[in-house]
Amino acid sequence: MRPALSVATLRRRRIHWRLMNMSSLPGFRDFYPADMALRLHIVRTWREVARRYGFVEYDGPPLESLELYTRKSGEEIVGQLYAFTDQGGREVALRPEMTPTFARMVAARAAGLPKPIKWFSVPQLFRHERPQKGRLREHFQLNLDIVGETSVASDVEVVAAAIDVLREFGLGEEDFEVRYSDRRLISGILVELGVPETGLPGAFAALDKADRESSEWVLDRLAESGVPRGAATDVLALADVDLQELAHRFGGSSEVVDSLERLRRFQTQLEATGLGGFARFDVRLVRGLAYYTGLVFELWDRRGRFRAICGGGRYDDLLEAVGGPALPALGFGMGDVVLAELLRDRDLVPDLSVALDDFVVHVSEEQLPEALRIVHALRGRGRRVAFDYRSRGVARQFKVAHQAGAGRVIVVGPEEVERGECVVRTMATGEERRIGLAELLADSS
Amino acid sequence: MRPALSVATLRRRRIHWRLMNMSSLPGFRDFYPADMALRLHIVRTWREVARRYGFVEYDGPPLESLELYTRKSGEEIVGQLYAFTDQGGREVALRPEMTPTFARMVAARAAGLPKPIKWFSVPQLFRHERPQKGRLREHFQLNLDIVGETSVASDVEVVAAAIDVLREFGLGEEDFEVRYSDRRLISGILVELGVPETGLPGAFAALDKADRESSEWVLDRLAESGVPRGAATDVLALADVDLQELAHRFGGSSEVVDSLERLRRFQTQLEATGLGGFARFDVRLVRGLAYYTGLVFELWDRRGRFRAICGGGRYDDLLEAVGGPALPALGFGMGDVVLAELLRDRDLVPDLSVALDDFVVHVSEEQLPEALRIVHALRGRGRRVAFDYRSRGVARQFKVAHQAGAGRVIVVGPEEVERGECVVRTMATGEERRIGLAELLADSS
Repeated sequence: MRPALSVATLRRRRIHWRLMNMSSLPGFRDFYPADMALRLHIVRTWREVARRYGFVEYDGPPLESLELYTRKSGEEIVGQLYAFTDQGGREVALRPEMTPTFARMVAARAAGLPKPIKWFSVPQLFRHERPQKGRLREHFQLNLDIVGETSVASDVEVVAAAIDVLREFGLGEEDFEVRYSDRRLISGILVELGVPETGLPGAFAALDKADRESSEWVLDRLAESGVPRGAATDVLALADVDLQELAHRFGGSSEVVDSLERLRRFQTQLEATGLGGFARFDVRLVRGLAYYTGLVFELWDRRGRFRAICGGGRYDDLLEAVGGPALPALGFGMGDVVLAELLRDRDLVPDLSVALDDFVVHVSEEQLPEALRIVHALRGRGRRVAFDYRSRGVARQFKVAHQAGAGRVIVVGPEEVERGECVVRTMATGEERRIGLAELLADSS
Repeated sequence: MRPALSVATLRRRRIHWRLMNMSSLPGFRDFYPADMALRLHIVRTWREVARRYGFVEYDGPPLESLELYTRKSGEEIVGQLYAFTDQGGREVALRPEMTPTFARMVAARAAGLPKPIKWFSVPQLFRHERPQKGRLREHFQLNLDIVGETSVASDVEVVAAAIDVLREFGLGEEDFEVRYSDRRLISGILVELGVPETGLPGAFAALDKADRESSEWVLDRLAESGVPRGAATDVLALADVDLQELAHRFGGSSEVVDSLERLRRFQTQLEATGLGGFARFDVRLVRGLAYYTGLVFELWDRRGRFRAICGGGRYDDLLEAVGGPALPALGFGMGDVVLAELLRDRDLVPDLSVALDDFVVHVSEEQLPEALRIVHALRGRGRRVAFDYRSRGVARQFKVAHQAGAGRVIVVGPEEVERGECVVRTMATGEERRIGLAELLADSS
């Protein structure tokens, strides 16, 4: 066995190198304690709402077989993957999304799991994209899915959960809205307008960009997908059409009629939850991914300052298509980056600093053992407690206690040790009292 | 833009492939909900104890520059790294340990951070080792460190925190012990015994294996490190020597005398915390890593069934040696794999299943909107609530509620809707009562 390098050797090596100058990789974040507190606040809130809805948490490995991703999304996703060959010669990749792992895990136990499966996860995901506002090379994402349900009520459940997550952060109807549509509805309409079946995936991808790109750009993409020019113009003109008008214009298509009926029930039920005011039908909301089969939705900042906060929908054929069980499913993903930007924008990041409950001051080093006894007894009662490791002067210790936001300072000097007492100062009021140790511990639970 | 693949295309591709047959990579874990509950229990407990001790949480990226690791540990660590060249041509690696990231982050802000820095983290770490009992290719690890302190009290603080973490899981003095020593003490002794300075790192590495390997093996390694045969035998014979005997035998070495004095203060202070019974001096406990400079310690199962549960020590020169600030530091790492094995072995995994608070039964589909209203009002009060998405028969719904462990079932039928009431059944007692909705919500906060 070769021993590790000695510190002397390390010292010699550092001539051309300074750790001080190193930073994390571009697009990757360091979470210093204040940043970490916000991340924990976000994850805690995600978990709390998922818990209320009766979902249970799972996770998979951040590193998976490359094949798991290329099979679902095709070779083109490899361009954004952190993919490599490991020491054992396996082609592997850092997970760029959670759905393939989710599908793999559900597939392995599909028969034994009671339906509906209601699972959520909070994975860190990785894509080698150009870092930009709201998009990094890693992010944390709430994934929440229901498997084994086709009911409208399960559509409502997933959308309501997404809304309630944002409400739990303090965001209201004035802050965001849910735009929703139905993939079957839009494909029915496109077919009625003369778009060939083979042109549908291209048409979905083009419509997905209709908000951000010029009409010309969208019309060109539609033409590339084999959509006749006249139909393409009609598709673009759908923007402001409501359900009633659609029913009137496309009443001849059973696909359109059925999905309009389903959308009406969706609306009624969402109203019943009390969350109807957050949601708006938008026929052009299709989402880019080819695999959606019904409801599609996105959550957007009403002030238009950010990318989509959350997106999801129903993917009834996907699990089977990727080689998994033939089970319908739906769900959404919500990332932490845009969400954190939105919370900061609306001043909804709470004070997350954690103050000490108690700081135990010892007057001189002789009282250190007694201070340690008290510190550990208080910690044993669940309190957050610190003391001075160096037995510095009392004034200095009080200053540290103050900076740490301690609620109480407990002073132990020679007299106190002799009498089995201590002095307790409540920092907010300045009130001081001398009490016995038994009383201190009784007061501190 | 190329559109994503259609489901039809995906279907064609799956001919030779079944997701059902895929598993995670060897040495990587899937966390199904029950596994995830245990992982969350472990992480929650780690955080709770770190919090009580006044530590704050940080995190860094799981992917870092390869150089960050090769600089600290030398090129040989590359053999265990998941290292690759990313799309941008950068040499990168999945983090195999947290200390380099910790050193990098502290270095970047060292001047502005109040000392002592008391930070902890719960990273997932990655090493391409042969998977075996207690060792996988990924694990989660509590890292807890203090920077900017040389005091004995800070040594005690870190060891006490490690002990209290295990106590918080329900483990007691009969379950585990802390073995500790001092790297300066052992190097002073080795020098006194005639081991040349250059042979020290090799001697540390050999002693680290003394428990697991034969005496012959250890003697051979010591010889390779330039330790004379006579000295090597003396080193091995140190196993059962206590502090008093060491003071007697090596009283001529100021390094030995100083570190013995420091160890005595360490013992006195650890006794004061009430945790002295967990700890045992073991002169041969050196830990393999070259960079320790003082206290070294490990937590071991007293029944000898598992690998070390936790290990750490003081590394006063490391931050500077790797190009960071000249600050003393100490800390420990505790992984989740051995810990979980130990908890299972001692039957200390609590029941972590999460039951529903309420299940809302609706008698037929007409009452679904009213049920949704109640479900969401209860969730808004923080309760964990589910209902049947398919409006199946009442008996079926009760069965599902029972299986989900619901505390209460709330029944809404046509009569109840008309009167603004519901029937509440307490599942534990079978007691049923009819109450108004206002009363239900008042009862449910």
